[in-house]
Amino acid sequence: MMGCKMKDLKDYVRTIPDFPEPGIMFRDITTVLRDADGFKLAIDLMLECLKDVEFDVLALAESRGFIFGSVLAYELHKPITLVRKKGKLPAKTISEKYELEYGTAELEILLDAVKEGDKVVVIDDLLATGGTIEACCKLIEALGGEVADILVLMELQGLNGREKLSKYRVDSVLKYEGK
Amino acid sequence: MMGCKMKDLKDYVRTIPDFPEPGIMFRDITTVLRDADGFKLAIDLMLECLKDVEFDVLALAESRGFIFGSVLAYELHKPITLVRKKGKLPAKTISEKYELEYGTAELEILLDAVKEGDKVVVIDDLLATGGTIEACCKLIEALGGEVADILVLMELQGLNGREKLSKYRVDSVLKYEGK
Repeated sequence: MMGCKMKDLKDYVRTIPDFPEPGIMFRDITTVLRDADGFKLAIDLMLECLKDVEFDVLALAESRGFIFGSVLAYELHKPITLVRKKGKLPAKTISEKYELEYGTAELEILLDAVKEGDKVVVIDDLLATGGTIEACCKLIEALGGEVADILVLMELQGLNGREKLSKYRVDSVLKYEGK
Repeated sequence: MMGCKMKDLKDYVRTIPDFPEPGIMFRDITTVLRDADGFKLAIDLMLECLKDVEFDVLALAESRGFIFGSVLAYELHKPITLVRKKGKLPAKTISEKYELEYGTAELEILLDAVKEGDKVVVIDDLLATGGTIEACCKLIEALGGEVADILVLMELQGLNGREKLSKYRVDSVLKYEGK
């Protein structure tokens, strides 16, 4: 490449201090998305993580999980199920309350989203405290599914989400030491 | 194919009466997503619509627009900008209030999401009354961008969204006569 250094995925991430609350260093992925090379790199690294994972369904956490997970589903020709905020899904659902890094929330999944014995990969952009993803896993398991992998673009290691999810395989493309 | 009829994309869409309010026939795309063939068909038909559109950026409407738009962006190697509900985007934004089919809402876009003269394609899953998409177009134009196309998976023709958007090119893959 003659002196041309390939950009690292971290070079595309922008850090915004004090968003959405004072003290939070927000790792902004909009700067990854707005560069076609950055987005391609992010997806290709996520695909690499799934190379040796056998699974039936991708469960995408609303709403930034939709951005990455839908491309993975298309590329790997796998079905998608959505894990959405309460009240957004039509038809019969089950729901799970959980604590966020800042606040509380409730997630839902369609009753027919996962079949007994399905191996499911959970996709989100971010692993922070692990609350959102743990709720996704509980919903999948309540329907008889098995969590084959949790795959996120970014992991904030200082928030110990991986400990909360210690019974699962967890893959992250980018690791940040702080919160 | 010896007697095997290829499924039409409409065959994958489920209709749910009275969601989210009485009288609404909700066209549910979760049944498209949960079938890898259905999702591939949806994306491939959307790609076909964009074949002759010259553009610089895809603007994805939160949150179901994220599901389709991100795959289009990856396949066409184009940048993504997100049009999100108020308060979700970090950094400087502009916002636009609008009326929904049922209720009101406010959308935001990053100030640096679109550059002067950029040709932008707006992506969403659904064209209903056109309120959401019109707000997206106003945000893009406020930043000096030009709406090159509006592309949705589904259009509810009875709600006349296309009239509201008559100054733009509008492409939809599936058309439903009712509301």
